[in-house]
Amino acid sequence: MPTQDDIRAAAERIAPHIRRTPVFRLEPADTGLAVPVTLKLEQLQVTGSFKPRGAFNRILSSRVPEAGVIAASGGNHGLAVAHAAQKLKLNAEIYVPGPTPEAKKKRIMDTGAWVYVGGMVYEHARLAAEERAAETGALMVHAYDQEEVLAGQGTIGMELEEQAPDLSHLLVAIGGGGLYAGIASWYRDRINMVLVEPEACPTMFVAAMTGAPTDAPTGGIAADSLGARRIGEIAFATMQEWGGNSVVLADELILKAQRWLWDRLRIVAEPGGATALAALLSGAWKPPSDAHVGVVVCGANCDPGSVVG
Amino acid sequence: MPTQDDIRAAAERIAPHIRRTPVFRLEPADTGLAVPVTLKLEQLQVTGSFKPRGAFNRILSSRVPEAGVIAASGGNHGLAVAHAAQKLKLNAEIYVPGPTPEAKKKRIMDTGAWVYVGGMVYEHARLAAEERAAETGALMVHAYDQEEVLAGQGTIGMELEEQAPDLSHLLVAIGGGGLYAGIASWYRDRINMVLVEPEACPTMFVAAMTGAPTDAPTGGIAADSLGARRIGEIAFATMQEWGGNSVVLADELILKAQRWLWDRLRIVAEPGGATALAALLSGAWKPPSDAHVGVVVCGANCDPGSVVG
Ligand SMILES: Cc1ncc(COP(=O)(O)O)c(C=O)c1O
Ligand SMILES: Cc1ncc(COP(=O)(O)O)c(C=O)c1O
Repeated sequence: MPTQDDIRAAAERIAPHIRRTPVFRLEPADTGLAVPVTLKLEQLQVTGSFKPRGAFNRILSSRVPEAGVIAASGGNHGLAVAHAAQKLKLNAEIYVPGPTPEAKKKRIMDTGAWVYVGGMVYEHARLAAEERAAETGALMVHAYDQEEVLAGQGTIGMELEEQAPDLSHLLVAIGGGGLYAGIASWYRDRINMVLVEPEACPTMFVAAMTGAPTDAPTGGIAADSLGARRIGEIAFATMQEWGGNSVVLADELILKAQRWLWDRLRIVAEPGGATALAALLSGAWKPPSDAHVGVVVCGANCDPGSVVG
Repeated sequence: MPTQDDIRAAAERIAPHIRRTPVFRLEPADTGLAVPVTLKLEQLQVTGSFKPRGAFNRILSSRVPEAGVIAASGGNHGLAVAHAAQKLKLNAEIYVPGPTPEAKKKRIMDTGAWVYVGGMVYEHARLAAEERAAETGALMVHAYDQEEVLAGQGTIGMELEEQAPDLSHLLVAIGGGGLYAGIASWYRDRINMVLVEPEACPTMFVAAMTGAPTDAPTGGIAADSLGARRIGEIAFATMQEWGGNSVVLADELILKAQRWLWDRLRIVAEPGGATALAALLSGAWKPPSDAHVGVVVCGANCDPGSVVG
């Protein structure tokens, strides 16, 4: 787990390449809830998701070999690595599974990276990328289970604590758990984390049930961002140390949150980007009456027309 | 022209009903420009445009007769008045021209207001609404040419100066000029205003050319938000007092800015909402090298799918 100093160092390292994304405070009149809610608008980040924070930090804190960088991804992480490679003038190879949305594939290809499409889920792409990296010696930038990646994602926590110092709870979506673990490593015991995932790809829930990272289903509407095969080792260890409330949601509730974001706020988010908010809007997780709830809106790499019903 | 005190009073009056919208600072790496740019994300306002600021202020500072409120609008102002009436439990009649996009008409109807659709442009709807108001005695909430409406729009300036105190220039779109005049009444000589409008509906430009508010064309892709027949009297007087740089743009450049907002920032804006930014991105207006440029992104009541090329 990264320390606060690791996260501060990451923030400095990546500052020239990422955006300080705004927060947006909603009052009870906006949400129908009894407590204020502050959204961290991380879908406005470079490349349309939070992923470049971790990708830039991993690359900038490593000696990158001639072969460049390599990553496997449902889309957003691959785009972040490809974007970083373009900016830093490095060779990049990105492995994505076949069902990744065209919008994501196209954005990755537009960076000039080599893109390998194959397999049905993130896990297939990951295995292929590992094999290839062993051959070429390229620097692997893992989507979630690497210290430097987590330290990068943790800069969201550092920013958010400055922007909204009195948050009591923070809702985040879980795929491989890097977003959660990075942020939890920043806040430690200063916030209550709520870990939200679709019931169609519930990596943290399955790990909590079985007591260890364990293979989980990887389906549903948010699979292209949250569909890791199992929770990362570091994220699981973080959960054991700092805890957090696990919430599992039907896809239907995620879709509803996506529509609500457009209809009520004119914000576009992809399914994975709306998942954390869905736990709150659906009532699946209920804030205590004195809470100030933070929610990370973490990605918008979808067809914008897809957010209307 | 409202005074700063009028605007402070308006801010207090409307606070329970509107959102403090976030700002989003972009660096040269994001824009390719040499100077920082701060967007005021007013498309995230209640109802999807800045208009409820003026609408609530006008209604809350008036004695509203039994007949309720009445307004004419290309869409956003009508939606703001209808929304305010719904919240305040008042009767509302909204006049909109036929070509107003369905998305706007539907949102107005969903509030429960009476909606009258007729005529080809805002001006036709305005004349019909004036006639009707004379019959019923309903409170007219003008789209731009009323002191209380301007004081409401001016609260954007008040907020923005707190959020980004060092702005040197501010770009705003011009329809009837209420947005501009409200904000200019707040800032007075503390900022350089840049007034941006489509060449297809250039009310301020025509007024500046002729020396008085004068009928102008009302066409083009932003007509449903910027297509007033002529600049408001108060806005024209404000322009004479506080000045501002007038910029006129081809529709093509506005469309490009709309696409850029989605492609680079994952922000959806309607054409009128992207017009001010278009002046900067297109180079039609060039900031001095020591500028910190503010831009009001002022509306997103469009089909979200319309922002991709
Ligand atoms: C939009 C979005 N949200 C959330 C996540 C989950 O992040 P993590 O895998 O670090 O848990 C991802 C991962 O790709 C994502 O793209
Ligand atoms: C999105 C949007 N931008 C700008 C304007 C222009 O405002 P004004 O008529 O006060 O100049 C409007 C007016 O309807 C609008 O809806």
